Amino acid sequence: MPRWESDAQGRLERAALELFETQGFERTTVAQIARTAGLTERSFYRYFPDKREVLFAGNELEAHLVAQVEAAAPDLMPFEALLTALGTADEVFRSREFLLRRVGVIAASPALAERDLIKLADIARALARALEGRGVESGEARFIIDVAIAISRRATSRWLADPDATLSELIAQAAAELRDAVTPRAPTVR
Amino acid sequence: MPRWESDAQGRLERAALELFETQGFERTTVAQIARTAGLTERSFYRYFPDKREVLFAGNELEAHLVAQVEAAAPDLMPFEALLTALGTADEVFRSREFLLRRVGVIAASPALAERDLIKLADIARALARALEGRGVESGEARFIIDVAIAISRRATSRWLADPDATLSELIAQAAAELRDAVTPRAPTVR
Repeated sequence: MPRWESDAQGRLERAALELFETQGFERTTVAQIARTAGLTERSFYRYFPDKREVLFAGNELEAHLVAQVEAAAPDLMPFEALLTALGTADEVFRSREFLLRRVGVIAASPALAERDLIKLADIARALARALEGRGVESGEARFIIDVAIAISRRATSRWLADPDATLSELIAQAAAELRDAVTPRAPTVR
Repeated sequence: MPRWESDAQGRLERAALELFETQGFERTTVAQIARTAGLTERSFYRYFPDKREVLFAGNELEAHLVAQVEAAAPDLMPFEALLTALGTADEVFRSREFLLRRVGVIAASPALAERDLIKLADIARALARALEGRGVESGEARFIIDVAIAISRRATSRWLADPDATLSELIAQAAAELRDAVTPRAPTVR
């Protein structure tokens, strides 16, 4: 059984996911989530500031990625340091089944989709600070982070569908595809 | 005098920008914006669904970019079609001075920053549909759009600071930098 199944945070996450799936995000209350998880509403707020946050695991992913970038070898190119960090995101991911259901729930709720965008923007800002700490100019940092996140999104959606590939392999694959896409080719003759 | 200065929508946009700057987004009401622009609240809602939307010019940018992608030569690579479209965004941009002040107002208001993220996500989705209409697979479309938007952000922030360069030149420059960044180099010896 994965770690997160056994603790209160994981029980709250699974309860929220199930309730959002069956009755929708809007109609689910924090009290219902807590009750379904066998906990009190007060316990819920020890883990999450609000109902929208329950599927975003606090700042776990952000903290993990920042720590990875900060720990990267100093001579690693910033872009490589980012891709390496993003390739380890599965260390803090929930199970594939949980994540696939989560994608569906987020897509079905504008409120959750907005929070998803905000969390990603927060992560990008935190990574920018980490790269600036490595001496990267802020505009340059923001640019390579936007590109690395594009690569990571492509890789993560494949990872969700393919149990046999590792996330870091799929990130390397998407980075190779990007190299290919940005290399201008002669237009094909119609 | 630019076109948008002479019409009601432009007057509302400038009034909102000034009020957001001087008293903050939260403390500004739609009635105040309308009054400052010399219009009625009812007129405001003919142009914008709510107070947050007034700095985002409705769907002008999205409609422009989608039309550009749809009109691109069929033999143009999808990534090149995107970059070409994004390079014409200045055709619907407000003045540099307006845009620079707008950046500051958005950065100062979480509500506006969220709307900014949502508008960008909407544009990405609309562009994805346009590329799918050109036969691009949906995951691939999403990926090159994310990358093209990263390039466009980099170019636009330079364009705001540099009155002498065209947006399309700066997009070509950022694309060249990206090619450079994704090409692995030997680590430097410390």
